[in-house]
Formats: sequence, structure tokens, C-alpha cells
Amino acid sequence: MEEVDHLDFERKTAEFDVDAMKIVWAGSQHAFDVNDRMARLVASDPAFRKDERPMLGRKDLFKNTLRKAAHAWKRIVELRLSEEEASRVRFFVDEPAYTDLHWGMFIPAIKGQGTEEQQKKWLSLAYRMQIIGCYAQTELGHGSNVQGLETTATYDPKTEEFLIHSPTLTSSKWWPGGLGKVSTHAVVYARLITDGQDHGIHGFIVQLRSLEDHSPLPGITVGDIGMKFGNGAYNTMDNGVLRFDHVRIPRNQMLMRLSQVTRDGKYMQSEVPKQLVYGTMVFVRQTIVADASNYLSRAVCIAVRYSAVRRQFGSHAGGPETQVLDYRTQQSRLFPLLASAYAFRFVGEWLKWLYTDVTQRLQANDFSTLAEAHACTAGLKSLTTTVTADGIEECRKLCGGHGYLCSSGLPELFAVYVPSCTYEGDNTVLFLQVARFLMKTISQLTSGIKPVGTAAYMGRLEQLMKSTCDACSAEDWLKPSVVLGAFEARSARMAATCAQQISTSPSPEDGFTELSSALAEAAVAHCQLIVVSKFIDKLQQDIPGAGVKHQLNNLCFVYALSLLHKHSGDFLSTGCITPKQAMLANEQLRSLYAQLRPNALALVDAFNYTDHFLNSALGLYDGNVYPTLYEQAWRDPLNESVVPEGYVEYIRPLLKQQLRISRL
Amino acid sequence: MEEVDHLDFERKTAEFDVDAMKIVWAGSQHAFDVNDRMARLVASDPAFRKDERPMLGRKDLFKNTLRKAAHAWKRIVELRLSEEEASRVRFFVDEPAYTDLHWGMFIPAIKGQGTEEQQKKWLSLAYRMQIIGCYAQTELGHGSNVQGLETTATYDPKTEEFLIHSPTLTSSKWWPGGLGKVSTHAVVYARLITDGQDHGIHGFIVQLRSLEDHSPLPGITVGDIGMKFGNGAYNTMDNGVLRFDHVRIPRNQMLMRLSQVTRDGKYMQSEVPKQLVYGTMVFVRQTIVADASNYLSRAVCIAVRYSAVRRQFGSHAGGPETQVLDYRTQQSRLFPLLASAYAFRFVGEWLKWLYTDVTQRLQANDFSTLAEAHACTAGLKSLTTTVTADGIEECRKLCGGHGYLCSSGLPELFAVYVPSCTYEGDNTVLFLQVARFLMKTISQLTSGIKPVGTAAYMGRLEQLMKSTCDACSAEDWLKPSVVLGAFEARSARMAATCAQQISTSPSPEDGFTELSSALAEAAVAHCQLIVVSKFIDKLQQDIPGAGVKHQLNNLCFVYALSLLHKHSGDFLSTGCITPKQAMLANEQLRSLYAQLRPNALALVDAFNYTDHFLNSALGLYDGNVYPTLYEQAWRDPLNESVVPEGYVEYIRPLLKQQLRISRL
Ligand SMILES: Cc1cc2nc3c(=O)[nH]c(=O)nc-3n(C[C@H](O)[C@H](O)[C@H](O)COP(=O)(O)OP(=O)(O)OC[C@H]3O[C@@H](n4cnc5c(N)ncnc54)[C@H](O)[C@@H]3O)c2cc1C
Ligand SMILES: Cc1cc2nc3c(=O)[nH]c(=O)nc-3n(C[C@H](O)[C@H](O)[C@H](O)COP(=O)(O)OP(=O)(O)OC[C@H]3O[C@@H](n4cnc5c(N)ncnc54)[C@H](O)[C@@H]3O)c2cc1C
Ligand SMILES: [Ca+2]
Repeated sequence: MEEVDHLDFERKTAEFDVDAMKIVWAGSQHAFDVNDRMARLVASDPAFRKDERPMLGRKDLFKNTLRKAAHAWKRIVELRLSEEEASRVRFFVDEPAYTDLHWGMFIPAIKGQGTEEQQKKWLSLAYRMQIIGCYAQTELGHGSNVQGLETTATYDPKTEEFLIHSPTLTSSKWWPGGLGKVSTHAVVYARLITDGQDHGIHGFIVQLRSLEDHSPLPGITVGDIGMKFGNGAYNTMDNGVLRFDHVRIPRNQMLMRLSQVTRDGKYMQSEVPKQLVYGTMVFVRQTIVADASNYLSRAVCIAVRYSAVRRQFGSHAGGPETQVLDYRTQQSRLFPLLASAYAFRFVGEWLKWLYTDVTQRLQANDFSTLAEAHACTAGLKSLTTTVTADGIEECRKLCGGHGYLCSSGLPELFAVYVPSCTYEGDNTVLFLQVARFLMKTISQLTSGIKPVGTAAYMGRLEQLMKSTCDACSAEDWLKPSVVLGAFEARSARMAATCAQQISTSPSPEDGFTELSSALAEAAVAHCQLIVVSKFIDKLQQDIPGAGVKHQLNNLCFVYALSLLHKHSGDFLSTGCITPKQAMLANEQLRSLYAQLRPNALALVDAFNYTDHFLNSALGLYDGNVYPTLYEQAWRDPLNESVVPEGYVEYIRPLLKQQLRISRL
Repeated sequence: MEEVDHLDFERKTAEFDVDAMKIVWAGSQHAFDVNDRMARLVASDPAFRKDERPMLGRKDLFKNTLRKAAHAWKRIVELRLSEEEASRVRFFVDEPAYTDLHWGMFIPAIKGQGTEEQQKKWLSLAYRMQIIGCYAQTELGHGSNVQGLETTATYDPKTEEFLIHSPTLTSSKWWPGGLGKVSTHAVVYARLITDGQDHGIHGFIVQLRSLEDHSPLPGITVGDIGMKFGNGAYNTMDNGVLRFDHVRIPRNQMLMRLSQVTRDGKYMQSEVPKQLVYGTMVFVRQTIVADASNYLSRAVCIAVRYSAVRRQFGSHAGGPETQVLDYRTQQSRLFPLLASAYAFRFVGEWLKWLYTDVTQRLQANDFSTLAEAHACTAGLKSLTTTVTADGIEECRKLCGGHGYLCSSGLPELFAVYVPSCTYEGDNTVLFLQVARFLMKTISQLTSGIKPVGTAAYMGRLEQLMKSTCDACSAEDWLKPSVVLGAFEARSARMAATCAQQISTSPSPEDGFTELSSALAEAAVAHCQLIVVSKFIDKLQQDIPGAGVKHQLNNLCFVYALSLLHKHSGDFLSTGCITPKQAMLANEQLRSLYAQLRPNALALVDAFNYTDHFLNSALGLYDGNVYPTLYEQAWRDPLNESVVPEGYVEYIRPLLKQQLRISRL
């Protein structure tokens, strides 16, 4: 490798302190240090190479993941890494694996739904990985509608056991990660039946495989559900299928924190408030929002760096051609995504705070903010994952033909990311939940119930219905109050229009159904407002580093004004802004792009991603794109021989017009 | 396989003659018959199985494609299929292969740019596949900017040969399909140099491999460029890299129809008009538009069928749950794509006519419509491929979790399709060409030059700048004149605004650059208008079959009004419609969705796709989704053993806490 930095000239044009920005991106000096150390630890260990992943067949790919997961655990134990460090190691290993579900779903489910006794027993095994667990909720026939799950858990008071059973084909568990080939245990969600009565869906800890030889226990059929989108990508994970034939488990393996079944089969609610479940949801979805900014920033980092290297057209008098990053169309597609990556970072940070806040309130039996917090996290999960999935693909397209090669890193990034739009709640289903919350909020205004938190602005509904936008010049669109006012009015009016139309329909339920598409749009508007307002809040903080705050300010307004342009139909149809004001906003946006341009490369350097983590010939820190692409090409298995396998059977006879006589 | 049609109840609700619609979709009774016969021929031949494609490693995958291509050719020869039938066979085999480039690019390039003598010699070899050719234009460093290609072809009058040479790493040919492992010949584009003078880019026929043993000829380095997006997908193609080290070819292998090099090295233009090249472009892009409707309709067919099978929520009193196709959000995402598939079909049909028209005019030395035809095909290529790529992914998301499985067919469909947005002209670059044409059209209005064809409406610019929309009720939005009027006004005003802003900038070129993002949007508006107006034209034709025209009418307005909603910012900011009219259009759109609902399944049946062609467990004609998904899962290589490879090394030691002592 040569030592030249081909992007040095671009780095020099930055107008801010990149090192200071790195701290802002990481969240704190401490977070930066841990990230930086763990990223290097992983990058420098050849055991974690991943550039050959797209070429491996399923079995080799999977075995390779098992190896890496074991190696990571070995290193974590050897180096006595803290929980935080360990989770960063898994992050930088950057490969979906059964461990994600073990740490991310199995353990939290037991923590959230297990009694203290259950936690003591199972968590101590799980923390040391003496058992490996997964989360088995979804079935072949039911995903979004959890209440429709068909697996049964029938209590037998004679033996004090539950019989876990799959009564139909569609009741087969289907999708759980880590289930197909690895997990020894699962939290299984099943319909609890005692004494012939159906008590709905509950969680049970079920052992699936022998701890001695890994063979499935009697009555259990388990396997992998097959290939998923993309090469490498999520195929490192053993998403599984699972069927039960009257499998018996002891009574104390029902997760009994919220409700219990007594020895003699009585079903009882516990004193612990049911709402606790929502706390867990807030937690999981908050991590998904944080992940959105991780993924989007990776894609943007690759696209920005390559756009600075790539030159096409515009050579004057034999000079170099124009960097494609200089084209305004490239900027207007790429810079809003760069801004979104930062925006999602900050809203994710804020969600962490929200989770702490909700948890403290729940402990004090204060449920007053729960509905709002739940709607807000559901909506932000949907918004950020939708934008990120589309954004990764846009970044790939922005890299032209070379973005289509696996060596660009972008195809795998897309394929591994897109299921975020589906799991932990299908995005459309979640937006409709947000809409339901908004309609409820509006209907309660008349009873004097004041909306809180991110919905507080709805308390000013009357005023927002008639407010007018003050922007008279392009510069006015850099005022936080002007931008916030427009976003609040838009969201409030879209929701209010829906509420009004629902109120004129035969029944609220019919009205909601009929208008659900408009309602989903209102939910999007509400969520975009949240992101904009949290970005603006962030700018109120003290942010050290020369020029750092100025860049963040530009990014914030790029985020807001590019949304305003994209959704100008919303703003105009509700009369929140005038066509003239829309034009001024656009003018301001163009000027912001120009200001961003010299800082673009440094703004992606601030993510502090290693070349190992990015895994992209186009996104290399030093911009040494072409020699790297060229070298990587030759590693394809097809290049092992100059004349391809199959030449003698399928090409030569064709060229020689001898196909008729050959057997194919 | 059971014989029950699980979707029979859905088929019964159709309000039109599906068989008649099949003819409309195919274009004619003849086209339907050929398609139907060839689809069955391929589907019934086990040699063309493709369901295991996603699981194959690169080498097996590629060898498998060589086998299929040879087998297809064998059948074509054996059955003495016509050219039309043969091309349909290749279509239904449905796997990118070197043959695509041989028939689709190599042969047309020689036809378009070769002299009669050259055509006689090379085409007769190519038609019988005694040679296999590819199209080698793009280089590592240059794609969009063809004029920047670096490969040189230097004439040596002493030997009457050209020396083909790759002077830099970035001059390596990179991307040509069929090049990596198969092609014996290539049309190579290179910078022609005679007597030290650079005459720009020209095409040359170059032999790459020995016809005896397939080894690369002296001076030629050639290989595959590696894995691309997705499993299966485009990895069946050997996109290649190629370097020349002073390779000599005879003088008569320069394609000399448009310009020549004489024996003694003089460069001369021929009498044949250069514009002929644009004719070929119109042809190729027309086939891409037709392909867009093929791909989009496949994805929509899968998503509609699965949405009719899939039920989630809304069970009343133990009855069946709601088909997800009944959810308005599902409809408002899916039905516009269904309508787009039909819209692209008809605009593609019209483009075929346009190509014939342009060809006849060129033969008569009439170049008057060429610029318009060129802009129109460039724009429609971009519009339809963008919508189709996004639409396939949207269909995948509409299938929830199961859409993420390869067995749904959708991941591969997406991965194989997306490069259409990049090859044959990057979509953004092409939209900017359309914008340039629009700006020129407007600037020429003052000189009295009347725009023709799809740009004719620009001749009414003054009137369109002040026209008002007449819609006073939701029903008014079903009037072709109202819809067309709104789309024409929107497109004209967006273009005129750009033209006006450009005229106030320091130079037209600066203005164009600065505004290029708005210009690209104006180009999109212009192209959407073309599609809408060609759909409306189609409805003016005599269309037989009970209820058929009524359905097409609904689809046409779903297409137009869903666009109007999506781009309402354009319509409102230019004052083409009022907020109230936007609301009425939306109301009409909802009503159209309701009318479409009972016909949705039959409208995708009309595509007449076989289960083999769709290759999707979710899109099966009979709706037998769940047993098929279940069966296919077990075929994954990971399920060959119950306990996975790697258990002993990487899982057991971890569970047993013995990792420390093991070597990973
Ligand atoms: C990669 C991956 C990993 C996963 N890991 C796990 C795991 O570890 N454990 C586990 O238990 N599960 C897992 N899942 C399953 C996942 O949670 C479900 O796929 C998800 O909940 C979506 O449900 P579904 O597939 O039933 O979608 P569906 O509900 O069938 O969605 C299909 C369509 O119907 C629409 N729709 C459904 N209901 C409504 C409604 N009420 N209103 C309007 N529209 C509606 C949706 O918007 C969507 O367009 C995983 C899935 C994937 C893809
Ligand atoms: C699957 C596949 C098959 C292919 N097959 C062949 C083949 O058989 N033969 C062959 O010769 N080639 C082939 N190609 C190459 C293909 O034609 C090029 O990739 C394509 O022309 C795009 O060019 P590029 O890659 O240079 O993109 P670039 O031009 O590098 O595009 C990068 C970015 O720059 C932007 N950009 C570039 N110029 C401008 C401008 N002037 N104004 C504004 N923005 C600009 C683009 O919009 C894009 O966002 C194939 C490519 C693929 C992916
Ligand atoms: Ca992860």
C-alpha cells in the first residue's frame, strides 16, 4: 500500500476542528475513546477480516461467523473487557450473529418479564454463555399481529408442566435469529391455556437442544429458513423454523413477573404494572434509531469520499475533470443524507435520555408520559429506518457503476440493513400507531388534557391552525423559530384535517381505516418535526471546537429545508407557507449546499470509521480507489482459472456448431 | 402439489374479461401466443430450473448459466425457432448471460457502425454464434463521460494495423458483460490516433481469445471484476476487466460506416449522417422501458397475490383475519405501482412506434424530430427505471418479513434490476440532458421554432403559464382534459421558471449548473406528462373485452392522481392547482382504490406469468404460500446436517467455558 493521501487536498478545505467534531459525533470523550480503541482492536485482528464474505457459500459463511463470534468472546474474556467495551467489539465485528439475539433480546426478555428468582437462575447462565438463547415470537402465519400467534402452552396440573405445541403449519416459529442452528434455549411466545381457558400470549423459557451434543430435544423440529437478501449480509445469521410436538417444560419456566400460573393451574395477574413492557420497547427502538445513524453515516462516508475521488466531464484545456461531488445534483442527493445522519445521531442521543426518564417514572408509578414516549419511539424507529434504507441505496447509485460491485461495500450494507424496516414493528403499522396517538391527543384537547413532551405543541393547536410564516427572505429560513413554526403548523394541520374528516364519518373506526394513508403521512410529519426540534435543541448546547457549531448549524438547516422541499406539498396545501416562501427556502438550501461543499469530506471523517469497518474500496480513507478495485477483482473465484469451468462442455461445442450432438 | 386454488374467491370478484386483458398486456394476439408458448417451453424444461440459484457459489452459478445458455441455443436450433421466438426464450430463461450482450449490443453495434462488407463478414459469424461478442466501452476511470476514454488505437501505416493499447490503470476496460470469461471478440471503443493526431472515440472489432482453446491472445489480460449485488442476480454474468498491451488488429476491423482511416492513414468522415447513432440509442432505450414494465409487473404480481393470501389483524368473532390487501395503506403503496406497470407498458409500446418513425425519417434524411425523440427516450429510460427499482423494493417491503427471504423472489429481482438506473446512461445524467433539451426548446420559442412531438405542448407556453384548473369536484379529476391540463401546466411552468432564472445568471452555463437540481425535477415532470398522455391516448383506442377499458381507465387515473399527490408541491407552488383541488384529487384517488380492489388479483393475472418465471413462493398462482415456504426452507445447505459444521470448534467450547484453551 502506498502512503499517499489522495484526498489530502480535500481535507485541507475544512473550516472546522475535525477532532472536536469526532467527540460530538461519539457523544463524549469517553465514548470516543472506547469506540476508537475497540475499532482498532477489531481492525487489527486478522481473524475479523470480512472482505471475502460476499464470495463465501452459505455453509462456509456461517461457519466463519461461528468462528468470529467465538473469537470475539474469547478476546472479551481474555482482555476482561467491560460490558460497554464488549458491546462495541460486537458492533465493530459487524456481522449479524446469534449473539445479537442472545444479548439483545433473550437476556432483556428475561430481565423484563422474569421474576427475580428466574432472573437469578437464567441470567447467570446467559451472562457466561453457558446457554445461548433466542427470541421466538414470530410464526409463519403471524408477525405484526402478535395476539394472533397460534403456538399453545397448555398447563397440566398433574405434572405441573406446560405442554408447548404447534397445532398448525402456520404456527411454526419462523424468523427468530440464532434459532436455526445455534441456540440452546429460547424465550417462546405462546397462547397460555389453563383449564380450557385461553389467557392470551405469554413468554416461556424452553430448552431446544442438548447441552451435551447439540441435538434437538425430543418433540422439537428445528432448522434454518434459508437464504435471505444479498451476499454475505444477513446470511451469517441462522434465522430459524421451529415446531413443537407436545414438548413439556416445568411450570417455573413461564416468565412470571407480570402474571402467574399457580401449581394447581390458577391464572393470576401480579402487582407489577403491565406498562413495564413498554419500557423495554422504548429501549429496543432507541437502539434501532442509534443504529440508523450508524448505517446511514457509513453509506454517506463511502459516497462522499468516492465522489471526491471520482471525476467525470468538465476538463478544461487538458486539466483534471470535475469531481462529481461538485455537481449540484450530486450534492442535492447526498448532502441531505449527510445531514440526516447527524440529525439521527442527535435524536438517538435524546432518546437515550428519554428511556432513562421513562424508566425512572415507571419506577415511581408515573405513567403520564408513557403513551407519548411510546408513540415517539415507534415513530422515530419507522422514520429513521425508512430514510436509512432508502439512503444507503441512494448512496450506492451516487457511486455510479462501481457502487454495484460488492467491493464497494454498499450492496451488503443495504441488504443487511433493510429488514430494520420490518422487524421490531413493520414501519407502516408503527406509523399508524403514531397516528392513533395523534388522533387521541387531539380528541382529548377538548377535555382539557394537555399533551406532553414531543406532542406538547399540539396544545397550541388553535393557534397553529391560523399562524402564518414570517419568512420574507432566504436568510429568514435560517431562524430556528421560522423553521420550527412551519414544521409545527404543518404537522398540526395535517393531523387536525384527519381528525376533522374522521369526525364526519359513520364511525371513528371506519374513518380511521378510510383515511389511514393520510394518517400515516401526518405521523411522518410529526416525527420529522421531532427530529428537527431535537437538532435545534442540540444547537442550544455548549459545543466546543473551532467552527464545529457553525457546521452543525448548517447541517441542521440542510436537514430541515431539504425536507421542506421534498414535502412542500404538505406545507403548501395546508397553507403553512406560500409558494414564494418555498422558493426562498430553496434558495437558502442551495446556498447551504455551497457552504457545506468544502467541509463535506471532513464531516464524514468525523465519524472516525476505520477502513476495516467500512469495508469499501470506494470509501478508503486515502482515496486510493482504482488500484484497490483492480486488485480485489482478481480475487473472485472465477479468476482462479483463465479458461472457465464449463468451457469444454458449454462454450466450445457452441462455437464449433457441435451442440446438437452434445448432452447438456 | 395440491390442486386447490386458494385464490379462487379473489379471482371471482373481477369485473372484467381477464383473457381479453391478457391480449392488451401482450400487445396483440400474436404476441400473446408467442409469449405463452415460449413461457411454457421454458417452464416445462427442468434444465431451466432457477430456484436454487441464490444458494450457489459463484463458480457453480456461472457454470450453470453457461449450461443454460448452451441448452437454450440448442433448443432454439433444434426447434428452428424464429428470431422473435428465440428472443422470448432468452427472456423467459430469465438469467443475465453473455448472450444478452452478444445479441443486444455486439450485433447492433456492428449493424449500426459497420460498413456493408464488415456486416457481411462479422454478422454471419455472430448470428451462428461461431464467435461470441461483447461491448467494451466503459473503463475503470470513465463511464458517463465517453469522450474521456483513455484506451488508444494508434494506426501504423507500415503494417496497416491499429495498435490497441491501455496506457494507464484507469484505462482498463471495466464492466463489459460477457467479457470476463466468455467472449471471443469485442467491439472496443478507443481513442483513434493517426499520424499523432487524436480523432476521438471510435469502435474496433478486436479478437480477445483463441477460437481453439479459449486462451487470451498475446497482449491481452482479461478477467472477471468480481461479485455484484445480491445472490444469484447479476453474478451469472461475467462482467469483465480487459487490458491491452499494444495489441495489433487489421485496419479493416475499425468500424468504418461513419468515418474511415485509409491505408496510408488519412482520417475521413463518410457521407452517412452521424445522427444515425442516435437511432440506435432510441432503440436500446426503448427496450429498457419495455423491460421496466416487465420487472415492475413481476414484483407487483408477487405483492398483490401475497397480500391477498396474507391475513393479519381484524378477526371478528373468531372469523378469518383481514387480508392485508384490504388495508388502505397497503393499497396506496401498491396500486400506484400496479398502475405504473400498465402505464410503462403502454408508453413502451408507443416508443416502439417512435423508433420506427425515427428510423424512417433518418432514411429520408429528415432529422427534425431526432432531438425530441432522443430527449424523450432518455427521459423515459430514467423515469421508468427509477420507479421500477424503487417499486420492486417497495413490493418487497409490502410482503413483510417473508419478502426478505430469497424464496420470495423479490431480493434477486431487485438486485438484478437496479443497475438499469446506471447503465445505458446514469439516470441523473440523462435527466439533465432532457433538461437541456427543454431549455433549448424554450429559448427557441422566440425565434418561432415550433416544438414537435412530446414537446409540442411547450408551443402553448404563454397560455399554459396563466391557465387555471377547472376541477370543482372529485369527479372532475376523471376528465382527461383536466388531468392533462394540470400536468402540462406543471411541466411548462417548472421549465419556464428555470429558464427565467438561468437568463438572469452571469452565463447560461453557470445558470444551468447552479440550477441543475431544479432542472432535473423539471425533466421528471416533463417525462411524467408523456407517460400520462400516452396512457390517455391508449384509452382513445378501440379496446375489446367486457370491462377491460373501464379497468384501464381506472388504472390511468390512479397513475396520474397518485403522481399528482406525490408531487403536489410542484403543482401547488406553480399555482397549477389549488389546495382545495388537491384535496378533491385525493378524494377521487381513494375512490379509485376502492374500485380497483376487487380487480387487483385479476389485473396481475393478466400478465400471464408462469410460476417458473415468477420464481416466488409468495407469488404462486394458486396462493399455496405457507407449505411452499416451509418446504423450500429445508433445502438450504445449512440444513444438510442437524448439528452445524463448526459446532465442535466454536460452539461447544464456548458453552463449556473452554474457549481459552482452544485455538480459533
Ligand atoms: C431479518 C429478520 C429478523 C427477524 N428476527 C426475528 C426474531 O429474532 N424473533 C422474532 O420473533 N421475529 C423475528 N423477525 C420477524 C419480524 O418481527 C416480523 O417479520 C415483523 O414483525 C413483521 O411482521 P410480518 O412479517 O408478519 O409482516 P406483515 O404484518 O405480514 O406485513 C405485510 C404487510 O401488511 C401490512 N400490514 C399488516 N398489518 C397491517 C395493519 N394493521 N394495517 C395496515 N397494514 C398492515 C404491513 O404494512 C406490510 O406491508 C425477523 C424478521 C426479519 C426479516
Ligand atoms: C451491471 C452493469 C453492466 C454494465 N455493462 C456494460 C457493458 O456491457 N459495456 C460497457 O461498456 N459498460 C457497461 N457498464 C458500465 C455502465 O455503462 C456505466 O457504469 C454507466 O455508464 C455509468 O457510468 P459511471 O459508472 O462512470 O458513473 P459516474 O459517471 O461515475 O457516476 C457517478 C455519479 O456522478 C454523477 N455524474 C456524473 N457525471 C455527471 C454530470 N455531468 N452531471 C451531474 N452528475 C454527474 C452521476 O449522476 C452519479 O451519481 C455496466 C455497468 C453495470 C453496473
Ligand atoms: Ca448488528
